[in-house]
Amino acid sequence: MERTRLISELWNAMDRRQWEELAAYFCDDAVVFWPSTNERFTVPEFIEVNRAYPGTWTIQIERLQQVDDLVVSVVKVALAEGRTSFHAVSFFEFRGDKIGTLYEYWGEDGDPPQWRINRSIGTRIS
Amino acid sequence: MERTRLISELWNAMDRRQWEELAAYFCDDAVVFWPSTNERFTVPEFIEVNRAYPGTWTIQIERLQQVDDLVVSVVKVALAEGRTSFHAVSFFEFRGDKIGTLYEYWGEDGDPPQWRINRSIGTRIS
Repeated sequence: MERTRLISELWNAMDRRQWEELAAYFCDDAVVFWPSTNERFTVPEFIEVNRAYPGTWTIQIERLQQVDDLVVSVVKVALAEGRTSFHAVSFFEFRGDKIGTLYEYWGEDGDPPQWRINRSIGTRIS
Repeated sequence: MERTRLISELWNAMDRRQWEELAAYFCDDAVVFWPSTNERFTVPEFIEVNRAYPGTWTIQIERLQQVDDLVVSVVKVALAEGRTSFHAVSFFEFRGDKIGTLYEYWGEDGDPPQWRINRSIGTRIS
């Protein structure tokens, strides 16, 4: 199957909280890195950390692109509670048909900092 | 010039605060989006917002890859003051030899949230 299609399916499984489907997308010895918090996970740990993540959410894919053995995705994860949302940029490095390494960068969405609001540089888009 | 090389030079100019060099990398009507804060910038505004950014910093390129007309970079931006750092993932969409659109996702680095520290899922890498 096309790799971007696989990653689209993976995010769909995350959105539906179908944890039992996730392991099949990864090599058994795959490693997941969250550099923003200096965390590293095995596949069972990665599934556990997602399962344990507080609250409920919906996931929208905003970008999905392939370069050779790499698929890059951008998703917006909106928590059901309140107005909190995150963007995650993920680099899925494939070994054959499965993910061997995943680097995932998370950032919380929010208003610009006060110094930027004061200076009115740029345009707010929503 | 190779596009990844151009982007490497651009980050180098940002690192050295050589603002007058930046505009040459962009089409005149280029647009920059920071989706995490819903901000949009023209090229002069983008240069201004970087120039006005409080503090001083150093920039390290952690990933740099090209897909057709797109260059994706991951940089770590460490502020000189305190221990604050950010990761930025940037999608530079080229039109010919220059950047036509840039989508940039910012996230502040930090410790994992308390619920994850309490559960000890995964490994801290530093």
